[in-house]
This record gives sequence, C-alpha cells and structure tokens, in this order.
Amino acid sequence: MLSKAKIKFVKSLQIKKYRKQEQCFVVEGAKSVQELLNSDFDTVLVLTTKDFQSHNKLPASAEVIEVTARELEGIGEFQSNDSVLAVARIPDPVDPAIGKDEFVLVLDDIRDPGNLGTIIRAADWFGIKTVIASPETADFYSSKVITATMGSFTRVGIFYTDLSVYMGGLQDGRIFGAFLDGKNIHHVNFGTGGHVIIGNESRGISADLTRFVTDKITIPRFGKAESLNAAMATAIICDVMRSGGLGAGNRG
Amino acid sequence: MLSKAKIKFVKSLQIKKYRKQEQCFVVEGAKSVQELLNSDFDTVLVLTTKDFQSHNKLPASAEVIEVTARELEGIGEFQSNDSVLAVARIPDPVDPAIGKDEFVLVLDDIRDPGNLGTIIRAADWFGIKTVIASPETADFYSSKVITATMGSFTRVGIFYTDLSVYMGGLQDGRIFGAFLDGKNIHHVNFGTGGHVIIGNESRGISADLTRFVTDKITIPRFGKAESLNAAMATAIICDVMRSGGLGAGNRG
Repeated sequence: MLSKAKIKFVKSLQIKKYRKQEQCFVVEGAKSVQELLNSDFDTVLVLTTKDFQSHNKLPASAEVIEVTARELEGIGEFQSNDSVLAVARIPDPVDPAIGKDEFVLVLDDIRDPGNLGTIIRAADWFGIKTVIASPETADFYSSKVITATMGSFTRVGIFYTDLSVYMGGLQDGRIFGAFLDGKNIHHVNFGTGGHVIIGNESRGISADLTRFVTDKITIPRFGKAESLNAAMATAIICDVMRSGGLGAGNRG
Repeated sequence: MLSKAKIKFVKSLQIKKYRKQEQCFVVEGAKSVQELLNSDFDTVLVLTTKDFQSHNKLPASAEVIEVTARELEGIGEFQSNDSVLAVARIPDPVDPAIGKDEFVLVLDDIRDPGNLGTIIRAADWFGIKTVIASPETADFYSSKVITATMGSFTRVGIFYTDLSVYMGGLQDGRIFGAFLDGKNIHHVNFGTGGHVIIGNESRGISADLTRFVTDKITIPRFGKAESLNAAMATAIICDVMRSGGLGAGNRG
C-alpha cells in the first residue's frame, strides 16, 4: 500500500537539499531500474507494477510496494508510461583511484543536467570509468541526469571537488583541453591515459584551469557554427582519443 | 506599445498548428536574433529592449515594438533574461539541390527537439548545408529547436518529406547508416559526399530505410553503454567523415 508519506518522501528527492539530507536518489523507468538492480548500488525502495515485478528479481533488502501504472504517474519527475520507480542510496564519496593508463573526464561547470547525463553515457560507451566535476556542475543524482545516462550512472563514478586543488595535486600525466586555437584532434597522439577537461557550455574552460592544460586540442570546423554543444564535443574527443588518434594504432 | 493581441499572436506560435497557419516562427534571445537579422529570413516583427535596439540594426520592413525586459518575460518559451524576441516568416519549401560532392543528413524520426537542434548545430559546424527529415521528426521551427541550434538554423536547410520516396528516388551515391554490426567508422573511406541516415532515438534506423543503406558503419565501443545519444552519434560520424576517415587525406 502506497502511503502519502511515502509519496511525499519520493517527491522530496526531486530537490537536491533533500537528496543530500536523505542520501537517497530516484531512478525512473524499467531500463534504468534494471541497470540499478544489476549494480552495486544499495536499493532501498521499489515502487513496482505487477508486470515489472513478475519479470525482474527485486532485492530482498529493499522495501517493495506494488503499485499500478496510474499510481506511479506523477510520483516520478517524468510523465512517461512507467512500470517502476526505485530509490537508492547515494554512495559515500571515495577518492578516485586513477590508473596511469586511464582516461578521466574533468567537468568544469557543466550546468545542464541533460548535457551531464549524455556526457556520462558517452563516458560509459568509451570505457571511461571516472569523471571529476566542479561543485557547480549539475547534480549527478537528479532524476534528469540519471534518466539521461540511460543506465550508465551505474558504471561511471563521479567525484565533485574543487578542480584547481585537484589539478594542482596531479603529479604528472597529460591534461587535454579543447580550445579554438588548439591542435587538430586528428593529429594528436593521445597515448593511453590522461585528463580531458570539458569546459562550461557558455564560457568554455576557465582561465583558472587553462593553466594546467598540457595539450590544447581542437575539433576541426568546416562550417560556420561558433561552437559545438559540450556533450557533442566530449563524444567526438572521446571517439578520436580511443580510436582515431595517431597513437591508437588500430587504424585499418 | 505591446498590445494583448500581439502577445497572443506571438504565444500562439508556440503551437505547430498556428505556426503552419501563420507561416511564422519565433526566435528568442540576442544571439539567435542577431543571426536571424544577418540571414536571408524575412523578419516580420521584433520585440526589442532599448538596449538591444541601440546596438543592432533592425530591418526596415519589420514591425518593431520597444519593450522592457520585464514585458518580454513570459512571452517567449524560455524564461531567460532576454533582450529581444523576433518573429520571422517560414520560407516556402523548395526541393533541395544536392551536389555530388556534398554530405547530407537524413533524419529518420528524430523526435526530441533538443536532439534535432544540436544535430543542426553539428551539421553547421561540419559544413553540412542540407538535412532531409521524415514528417515524424520534431518541428524545426519550434522555439526549442531554434534555440538549441544556437543560430545555426540560418545556415542549414531542412526538408521534410517521405524518406522512402526520397531515398528511392536517388539515382546513385553512397548511403551511410550506423548499425552495431557495421564497419568501424575509422576504417571507412567516406569519400567526398553521400547521405548519412540518423536513426530514431529508440529504435535506430527503420527497416524500411535500412534497405537503402550501401555502407553500414559503427562507432567503436570500449565500455558498456548500450547506445549513444542520436545527436552525439551524429557529431562523431560527421567529425570522422570530414577529418578522420581514411579518404579525408588531411592527416598530419
């Protein structure tokens, strides 16, 4: 039985303040919840239709409440025809352990939740496991971000921290950043690891972080658009870094 | 003086039916309106603050109404702190004249306006001038699409048509389409022109269009995401097609 208090609790998690207070977040939709259930996240509550429940194994540790699709409507942030909604625990932040042969994305104030979500999805596609984000970057645990990742939130870890302090603490390794006057990405040897800074949607990479960049790169332009969307630029850079860079060594 | 009738007219253009009836669409925000004023579009109405007016030349043929930023708020679809809003005429559709050495995007039901807008922006960045879209693709002239193009709507032409009929009418040329079992894009010689089909966000390229594809391509995956966002995939394909493909011949 779905109580009013439970509905209020789930809805409160739409607001960052309450997510922080409860250390919980909402996952909406069958595909995303399935990815959640197959992950290491601790699921605490599942509002499920009979149909979803009959096709999926729900964790014994979670409170499970059977609902109708109609009851579910309006509880989540998205008005799609959902069969399930889950609440999971936000894991405690741990310092990321980054290997030498690993690429890491550094998000310098990516404010749009849709952009953040698609960046996480791209990171997952290209096998990037760690994202470092400025405190001003959109909240990873908002429903809009979680939904836009299409399940990739379970495989990519995000760490919010002061980026100047973080970058200043790096001992070595290359730091890539996209600038209009950088080197054509298709002529760059990306090697096997390093940090890639993704600039804010409006102002690009901040002056404060520019000083850490060891490799200015650019996506060649053939038309007249002033810039590319931050998520698209990320996807292009990741693709070239992984497959198309001179160093990738897998060209046919 | 901004009349209630004028406000009603502008607001009515948020709805496709009225855009079609009036053959007009709305452009919001300083950057987008500046691009509009520098383009061949026929601007019919400008609601402008004193500030925007003093820094920009407005067309003599347009009706110009001075407003305060406060008056502007709530008239446009986006609640940003805007200084200007314009209404322009939707041009009559003309059959696209596509050169042999030209790349063309074919959108097979791109339903999300944000995706369509960023695809148009990417097309503009990569110098693609023509986009062919299925009737089910989001409406190019909605405010959300126009805004997401960041001004690129003035440089990329879109043509809505039945895609099977269009593709069936092509005499020759290559037709690229992304599939999971396609050839690695980094090993493809894209040549200097052709059509690139971008599949729907959920189901990819429809069976009906698959039969026209001459070159199945794929973006190599290194992680576990099931798919890439349609706009990101488009951006990656365009980048490789222009710069990274084996045929581009501009590698350093």
